[in-house]
Amino acid sequence: MITLAVDCMGGDHGPRVTLAACRQFLEHHPDARLLLVGLPASLQAFAHDRAAIVPASEVVAMDDPVEVALRKKKDSSMRVAIQQVKDGAASAAVSAGNTGALMAIARYLLKTLDGIDRPAIATQLPNATGGATTVLDLGANVDCSAEHLLQFAVMGSALVSALQEGGEPTVGLLNIGEEVIKGSEVIKKAGELLRSAASSGDLNFFGNVEGNDIFKGTVDIVVCDGFVGNVALKASEGVASMIIGALKTEFSRHIFTKMAAIIAYPILKALMRRMDYRRYNGAALLGLRGLVFKSHGSADAMAFEQALNRAYDAARNNLLDRVRTRIAHAAPLLVPADAQPQPGVAATAQ
Amino acid sequence: MITLAVDCMGGDHGPRVTLAACRQFLEHHPDARLLLVGLPASLQAFAHDRAAIVPASEVVAMDDPVEVALRKKKDSSMRVAIQQVKDGAASAAVSAGNTGALMAIARYLLKTLDGIDRPAIATQLPNATGGATTVLDLGANVDCSAEHLLQFAVMGSALVSALQEGGEPTVGLLNIGEEVIKGSEVIKKAGELLRSAASSGDLNFFGNVEGNDIFKGTVDIVVCDGFVGNVALKASEGVASMIIGALKTEFSRHIFTKMAAIIAYPILKALMRRMDYRRYNGAALLGLRGLVFKSHGSADAMAFEQALNRAYDAARNNLLDRVRTRIAHAAPLLVPADAQPQPGVAATAQ
Repeated sequence: MITLAVDCMGGDHGPRVTLAACRQFLEHHPDARLLLVGLPASLQAFAHDRAAIVPASEVVAMDDPVEVALRKKKDSSMRVAIQQVKDGAASAAVSAGNTGALMAIARYLLKTLDGIDRPAIATQLPNATGGATTVLDLGANVDCSAEHLLQFAVMGSALVSALQEGGEPTVGLLNIGEEVIKGSEVIKKAGELLRSAASSGDLNFFGNVEGNDIFKGTVDIVVCDGFVGNVALKASEGVASMIIGALKTEFSRHIFTKMAAIIAYPILKALMRRMDYRRYNGAALLGLRGLVFKSHGSADAMAFEQALNRAYDAARNNLLDRVRTRIAHAAPLLVPADAQPQPGVAATAQ
Repeated sequence: MITLAVDCMGGDHGPRVTLAACRQFLEHHPDARLLLVGLPASLQAFAHDRAAIVPASEVVAMDDPVEVALRKKKDSSMRVAIQQVKDGAASAAVSAGNTGALMAIARYLLKTLDGIDRPAIATQLPNATGGATTVLDLGANVDCSAEHLLQFAVMGSALVSALQEGGEPTVGLLNIGEEVIKGSEVIKKAGELLRSAASSGDLNFFGNVEGNDIFKGTVDIVVCDGFVGNVALKASEGVASMIIGALKTEFSRHIFTKMAAIIAYPILKALMRRMDYRRYNGAALLGLRGLVFKSHGSADAMAFEQALNRAYDAARNNLLDRVRTRIAHAAPLLVPADAQPQPGVAATAQ
């Protein structure tokens, strides 16, 4: 039996969406239990023999500053959900709430794993192979060092090998064309570290990749700092929206194009399904002493259920142990040269 | 009469494409002259009373390292074309060759303008408004300081106001969501500098924008460092290719979908035209003491002609003077505080 703690209050839609997703999820997973965390009044209508309500008296708003979420709302549904993981009552927590608050609370309550300086956010993006590329970091860390990028690569490898079938996943380091790599010393050094990690069997390093490789599906995992990852993600969403918008405009231009739209409808629907970001909802917060998954704030019930599925798969496949084992194995590479005298310092330093 | 120097040997296709584009361009611009630079044997078939052949005995290959292009091939078509600008024989140079080599040679021959540390590459990307967003930098500079980002903003404003109608163009600073802006001190400081520049009338600062705003068309100009810009550009190209590829797959799946494709063909064609990157071909190298435009290496004749058009418009609208004037006006903001004792140092520092 896998137990997940669900922050039912998070996201743009709150319990209306999260509870609908929870019901679907329980139907699809007969060996799962859910702890529904939130305001009892909002949740009491939900009755299921594998669900229990865990009360929380506060809700982190989507626009709450991190400090407010962390210091003022100590009985928030988000925090209580993560506390369930810390207490061992749940194997993973899932929330559609404010990313910054979720990361801060998760980090405060769960702490980082030995050998990890900074947790990362890993998400999946659909690619041209029909599969998905896992990209990390996506917003948690700006100004990363080469060692941080290596940590992301190791954690991403653990994630993908826990959630996807197939051999050791390939890792690409996000870089720019050969034209101008001068100056990006961090990337060059990260490349060296990743090559060392590949030779010591810690990961399967493909080499440098460029922005378009994320969507070509050149590698299973693309590693970058959080600023670059966030821009790449949002730029891609922007292009996709623009193209979909232009398709709609062109098809609704006049009577003939509207008729064409009716005929092309099944094809367009297949296209939309293929591009549907909801199918890949559920970003992993990696590097913590517990599993936490983040759903998109605007998720509908289908999308939120995907995030629950990913948390369930991660828990069932022991993602936490996998990350821990891999990080321990890669430890000699992860401690920066200047910190060598004090082994383990990286785990507590922050 | 506007004279452009054209590196006819550059790009993936060389004279076959560049000469065809030159012929079209001359037909469309009766007040333009072209200096066709390259191997005389490849160009001699081109006869036009407003075109002259300028011989060059070498060609920079698309994969030549910058050092080879700069130090070994001193009589390359790329270099001779830029030399025409330096000598005052042409108002702007256009090349579809290797970006790194073009930037290095342009910088070596033309030097940077007073007040500019680093030239930038500015390109246009189509947006959802039906217009285009100018983004810089795109690959020339990684690890930029806040002052560099301000220089890019000022130069981008000069470019857009020279090439587009309308009021003072709006500038956005590329950033990530409110979630995690800690750590990116450069971006925060750049925001302050851009606000100061706006209050002193140097530019029209909108504020922070995110990756999707490039394609929404939220602002006229998006400023970022070259690494981030390059990744955003290539990620967007990757998404666009993926969606177009998926559309093709879905429409060619079986006989019914193929029939639908025939009916939807005019709409799909309109879509492709709208998304056509070729219409926006022609990136500006800004911050040099002369105008240089870069065409995409894979440009066809239509795309290369667009790059010629942009160079022509820039020359006709005195882009160089506009950049110079704006940079001079913004000079007090452009000199980093720690360099104040030596005014003008930024111009020669490298």
